[in-house]
Amino acid sequence: MKAVRVHAYDRQPKIESAPDPVLQGPWDVLVEVNAAGVCRTDLHIIEGQWRDKSGVELPYIIGHENAGTVREIGSAVTNVSPGDKVILHPLVTCGLCRPCRSGDDAHCENSLIPGLTTDGGMAELLLTNARSVVKLAPGLEPADVAALADAGLTAYHAVRKAVPLLYAGTHVVLIGAGGLGHIGLQSLLALTAAEITVIDRSQAALDLATELGGHHAVLADGTQVEAALEITNGKGAHVVLDFVGEKGAEADGLSLTRQAGSYFVIGYGGRVDIPTIDIIYREINVIGNLVGSYNDLDELMALTAQGKVKLRTRRYSLDEALDALEDLDAGRIPGGRAILVP
Amino acid sequence: MKAVRVHAYDRQPKIESAPDPVLQGPWDVLVEVNAAGVCRTDLHIIEGQWRDKSGVELPYIIGHENAGTVREIGSAVTNVSPGDKVILHPLVTCGLCRPCRSGDDAHCENSLIPGLTTDGGMAELLLTNARSVVKLAPGLEPADVAALADAGLTAYHAVRKAVPLLYAGTHVVLIGAGGLGHIGLQSLLALTAAEITVIDRSQAALDLATELGGHHAVLADGTQVEAALEITNGKGAHVVLDFVGEKGAEADGLSLTRQAGSYFVIGYGGRVDIPTIDIIYREINVIGNLVGSYNDLDELMALTAQGKVKLRTRRYSLDEALDALEDLDAGRIPGGRAILVP
Amino acid sequence: MKAVRVHAYDRQPKIESAPDPVLQGPWDVLVEVNAAGVCRTDLHIIEGQWRDKSGVELPYIIGHENAGTVREIGSAVTNVSPGDKVILHPLVTCGLCRPCRSGDDAHCENSLIPGLTTDGGMAELLLTNARSVVKLAPGLEPADVAALADAGLTAYHAVRKAVPLLYAGTHVVLIGAGGLGHIGLQSLLALTAAEITVIDRSQAALDLATELGGHHAVLADGTQVEAALEITNGKGAHVVLDFVGEKGAEADGLSLTRQAGSYFVIGYGGRVDIPTIDIIYREINVIGNLVGSYNDLDELMALTAQGKVKLRTRRYSLDEALDALEDLDAGRIPGGRAILVP
Amino acid sequence: MKAVRVHAYDRQPKIESAPDPVLQGPWDVLVEVNAAGVCRTDLHIIEGQWRDKSGVELPYIIGHENAGTVREIGSAVTNVSPGDKVILHPLVTCGLCRPCRSGDDAHCENSLIPGLTTDGGMAELLLTNARSVVKLAPGLEPADVAALADAGLTAYHAVRKAVPLLYAGTHVVLIGAGGLGHIGLQSLLALTAAEITVIDRSQAALDLATELGGHHAVLADGTQVEAALEITNGKGAHVVLDFVGEKGAEADGLSLTRQAGSYFVIGYGGRVDIPTIDIIYREINVIGNLVGSYNDLDELMALTAQGKVKLRTRRYSLDEALDALEDLDAGRIPGGRAILVP
Repeated sequence: MKAVRVHAYDRQPKIESAPDPVLQGPWDVLVEVNAAGVCRTDLHIIEGQWRDKSGVELPYIIGHENAGTVREIGSAVTNVSPGDKVILHPLVTCGLCRPCRSGDDAHCENSLIPGLTTDGGMAELLLTNARSVVKLAPGLEPADVAALADAGLTAYHAVRKAVPLLYAGTHVVLIGAGGLGHIGLQSLLALTAAEITVIDRSQAALDLATELGGHHAVLADGTQVEAALEITNGKGAHVVLDFVGEKGAEADGLSLTRQAGSYFVIGYGGRVDIPTIDIIYREINVIGNLVGSYNDLDELMALTAQGKVKLRTRRYSLDEALDALEDLDAGRIPGGRAILVP
Repeated sequence: MKAVRVHAYDRQPKIESAPDPVLQGPWDVLVEVNAAGVCRTDLHIIEGQWRDKSGVELPYIIGHENAGTVREIGSAVTNVSPGDKVILHPLVTCGLCRPCRSGDDAHCENSLIPGLTTDGGMAELLLTNARSVVKLAPGLEPADVAALADAGLTAYHAVRKAVPLLYAGTHVVLIGAGGLGHIGLQSLLALTAAEITVIDRSQAALDLATELGGHHAVLADGTQVEAALEITNGKGAHVVLDFVGEKGAEADGLSLTRQAGSYFVIGYGGRVDIPTIDIIYREINVIGNLVGSYNDLDELMALTAQGKVKLRTRRYSLDEALDALEDLDAGRIPGGRAILVP
Repeated sequence: MKAVRVHAYDRQPKIESAPDPVLQGPWDVLVEVNAAGVCRTDLHIIEGQWRDKSGVELPYIIGHENAGTVREIGSAVTNVSPGDKVILHPLVTCGLCRPCRSGDDAHCENSLIPGLTTDGGMAELLLTNARSVVKLAPGLEPADVAALADAGLTAYHAVRKAVPLLYAGTHVVLIGAGGLGHIGLQSLLALTAAEITVIDRSQAALDLATELGGHHAVLADGTQVEAALEITNGKGAHVVLDFVGEKGAEADGLSLTRQAGSYFVIGYGGRVDIPTIDIIYREINVIGNLVGSYNDLDELMALTAQGKVKLRTRRYSLDEALDALEDLDAGRIPGGRAILVP
Repeated sequence: MKAVRVHAYDRQPKIESAPDPVLQGPWDVLVEVNAAGVCRTDLHIIEGQWRDKSGVELPYIIGHENAGTVREIGSAVTNVSPGDKVILHPLVTCGLCRPCRSGDDAHCENSLIPGLTTDGGMAELLLTNARSVVKLAPGLEPADVAALADAGLTAYHAVRKAVPLLYAGTHVVLIGAGGLGHIGLQSLLALTAAEITVIDRSQAALDLATELGGHHAVLADGTQVEAALEITNGKGAHVVLDFVGEKGAEADGLSLTRQAGSYFVIGYGGRVDIPTIDIIYREINVIGNLVGSYNDLDELMALTAQGKVKLRTRRYSLDEALDALEDLDAGRIPGGRAILVP
């Protein structure tokens, strides 16, 4: 089959022929990939940022945001049949460890992550298992939802954790209204009545945020902390969702966190650096956020089917994968996601 | 009356005569101080660490861990009567703001903190209000519980927040088994069935921890992270309670936090400094902890009345206040608390 | 002043002259009543249903849903000033007991309930205290919100408790879309993405529910359980909110509760009667709901200021109070609330 | 193999030869039964109480509290090996439905219950799957823990749900200190600092409860409600755990539930019958409790390995199964459990 493979870090991946994956165990599900999202993490993988953490052997196929059609199933699979349209949770999980048994399968102790620790979905076929496939509701198409499998799921997961803190009358600040951020914003609007302030460096991203229903838009021009503090009555927000996590957003986020509030780290690249006395005196929390659980993905698909979460995507063919990566890197896909379709 | 007052930062406080406080409002309660705890925060106040945060005008009376006997009450006070023995919550709160109305009065928007932002309890009399007084159960004496009013309350509060994470079979690492830590340890033993590993630089503190029921004791001799990781099967603990918060404990604490686990900052003086990629990849949380709420104090008194929390105290007269501060600073009160009694 | 007083149970109240209330304590707030809601509980009071529970001495003024303008405040009151527009929480609470200190002031151990256990607001003036007054946001008028003070607050409170159970993709069944129910419905739509099925005997009430955004409307014509089961895939709903609580709604509600689901009792008059084996085998919960807390009221006012909760009201003058009660009793105010204005 | 099979309801089961079970799917685990608990539910099954709910075809093997040694595993099983000592969760679950994915596998939508809906463990061999086996910690023996697999697990599950309500200083009333109750009592003591009042008809059961650490013992002689109300300051308990659920315990339990408190139904046979006005005016909850989850069982095994939960058992051989059932029925195993061993 055709696939996008990384052969060396800091080099362009190759679009080439690779062996077809085959069913190996009774839980396995083989999927024809109909759509694969292109994500900033793909750029980070290529740059080698995940080299030590993933431990994957090169060459391998990237692509961790996948949706498609079931082609073949193992002998023990009962929840999908060949022909079903599905979105794939990014992890292939065991179902036996404590996290899997607690609704926290994103921390499965025996997981694989196609596109990160094993072959992914920028290809014609992908091997996953029965625990990873979410059947799509009638009306949803793989190409419309693929980018929700990881980027959207991560944004939703963070929002879902924040929801209990965001009762009516609270403030939330959302830093970074790009690919993840605009899913986060829509999730907040669907699940809370909090007052939302969006901060971004791009006026276009802010305009999109306002169009989607954000209540306040603040341009990150150096005065953003001051401006957002004014909106929040000088106290800061009950919750800050930082989809940037680098280049000063970290410090902004901590400054904008209200006493007893929580700063959610979603984007990465920078550092959280804060005196312990400030943590305890303000009694603030720093909350890490990885990708969501299978249940989170299922809920996000419910919101999508209701029309409450919509994704802006730009489509590329699998042969144009390198162009898509380059456009993403160059910031030419603001507020949206690139999708590879066969 | 006699009182211990700070006249200038970085200078010794004076033991001197000060005006008697008098009832001013209908909610007020005037208490004869029977016992005032001496706390590391008193040293930090004297050093000027709280200068900007407290904004208090000098001179003023320190002492924020107080218990005593009600002498006089305002016209609207119904929950205590003259003669009642009480422990005082460290904050004098309003009862009207959202935090006060949510069981989170430690973040009252209109509070005073006797001994930090107004006159405290290293004196013969102290002015507080009806919302701050917890009546003692029969059998409890002010001198036995005073040091629980702030140090113990802070330790209990952090443990109380951690309890839902500590189901049977989980690991908790407790860094620093001194004044606060040994209250934290007893609270953990009273409220959870978690497996407890205590880390301290002092073998005496570790011996006390083991005597109180701690399951593993690790000397902080440079190999403590390795040793604690081994105890926790190489994964780290579900919860780390850091009662030190400086001098490397911060880094140890973060290293010992398990994937999806939480690092509770209680002690202070150092910094939390960690790449955002580590926060998100491990999906860990950094949880700030200030003092507990009135309800926390009420619960801690219930544990104390049950004999589940015992305080090691050394008593000094009010005239020996400077000796007590010096002994504390010199580390001569390990695993215990100094108490001033009239 | 003019007031509506009950002199004997099962007799019509009298509209008559009563003494003006006066400030008695430092916490007190005297309010000019601008609007008083007329509630089914007023009918129940007049019928004597609350005789034993309230223990009030006759004659007394009814009216427990009040909003108005502050006229005079006690010496210790800092949160409102004369001239402020306010809505009144139905309870006058102490701020000192455990419930008050836990955000659960609806269970205050020392409360009064104007209009139930002491003089209420169907009058020109009402005496309350500083802990009961919620200042209205600019743009909100007493007459527009008064009926939210109890009926709306009760509905909101139940929904607020149910929200954590209602993740995206869940089902909720709402029985009874009258005065309370249509506030409950709007609260559900503001705070969850659950799929909502409304059951009512009145097609007009169902039409209003659909207009407000309810997803499914089922006429209670004897086939309602079957119809609602079909909508919920034969499993029943994760949450049933029963705003009727009598005349068979109780049995319907229990039948429509999914395995491991919760049946929320809000309306009353009937009985819950169910074998313990059914409770345990289906592991269902029966959740009681009284009025909401002060914080609930504050949140409901935030939703109202955002335009997410709107009340249908019909206005009557204080002199028309008996007509209003009669119209309510006769079912002539469907899906709305009667309001007395001076 | 030898097995205890029910051939007809309301008749004695037969001890007879039955076909050996064999592995059928890749997830399957075949266990040599070393111990099978005898439970009141077995009596109810034989009486036909579960006939409609279980839908099982006769004859079949009873026994739903099982522990033993793994003999054979399917091709996909990775978490246990032949020779491992295990306790079996009573349900054989799918790992794919929402409940399984939420830590709530006791409500698996595709489960089997050996001993209730398919062949159980009063036999030499039992077929289960990889999701049901909890490996025993070193030092734990199947015969010591088997009765925890269902009775103990049910008691633990209810306590686990009640723990967040039982902060220090609260009251809990436990009705029925028999086989389940004394596990519930030990779990409460391990996980909370609540004040525990035990009610039972048997003085011997009360003596055992007191020996285990219960704080108050009340004989159910007709004055038990009055006596327990006095212990709880006339207010009732924050939580009532009813392990009886019939013969008046239901009414006692509801009477002893404090305002805003919760009545947990665990035992069954009777009815909950209460006016809706009482449910709402007191804002109480009725909480159903079935068996616990796999995680609950794992936690209970952790408590058992710590020595915090001990089971009183009386052993019978498989050939003496009918004697064991009779002794249980006749109340000759107070405060303990009968166990069948090969």
